[in-house]
Amino acid sequence: MTQQHPAQPVNLAQKASLISEQWSPRVVAEMNDYQFKVVRIEGEFIWHSHPETDEAFFVLEGTLRIDLPDGPVYVAPGELYVVPRGIEHRTAAEGEAKLMMIEPRGILNTGHEGGDRTAMNDLWI
Amino acid sequence: MTQQHPAQPVNLAQKASLISEQWSPRVVAEMNDYQFKVVRIEGEFIWHSHPETDEAFFVLEGTLRIDLPDGPVYVAPGELYVVPRGIEHRTAAEGEAKLMMIEPRGILNTGHEGGDRTAMNDLWI
Repeated sequence: MTQQHPAQPVNLAQKASLISEQWSPRVVAEMNDYQFKVVRIEGEFIWHSHPETDEAFFVLEGTLRIDLPDGPVYVAPGELYVVPRGIEHRTAAEGEAKLMMIEPRGILNTGHEGGDRTAMNDLWI
Repeated sequence: MTQQHPAQPVNLAQKASLISEQWSPRVVAEMNDYQFKVVRIEGEFIWHSHPETDEAFFVLEGTLRIDLPDGPVYVAPGELYVVPRGIEHRTAAEGEAKLMMIEPRGILNTGHEGGDRTAMNDLWI
């Protein structure tokens, strides 16, 4: 199912809470060729980068840790952080965190790393 | 001042509260050629459209009313709404609302309407 422009506003945290599995991003809205995705995470992801695009993270609940080459950044609820294109990063959370991510349609969660942490793309909720 | 990639996370509501005037969007971060802006609004804006781009609104505090050709949509804190490109719309709020907007760099708040409600573009906070 795709719904280019939801007729009703989207409650991001509520949408995230509907996702059955952690680390499984779901699209909730689109803006031009960009997608808004929500995801529940806990523990550590894998190091990866997106050479073709910046990637925005907005925290809904919990605390997001983004490991970067120069050390970690902690992102609290209501805070936004943009990982620049090409910069290696690893998302992590002690306890569950709910996030919104914004990036161009077609970007994989593992960048060019691949592997079994790669999530299905373009799934809506 | 421009700062392509803030080294620290940006607290959106806190940034919005620093803006001295209502209806004066300020850029807080960029993602590729898109800008994240925060704004404080109260009362009604003017009807306008952006023929070249969708426009995303995320509510931080208060309630945003978006008047659309088919009637108003009310957007609460934590909710996201995307106005499709080319659709006439008018933002409004009874009492103050704090918002984040996301759109390509260079988009004017009044679209192609112009007039004295047009805000300076590309101002950071």
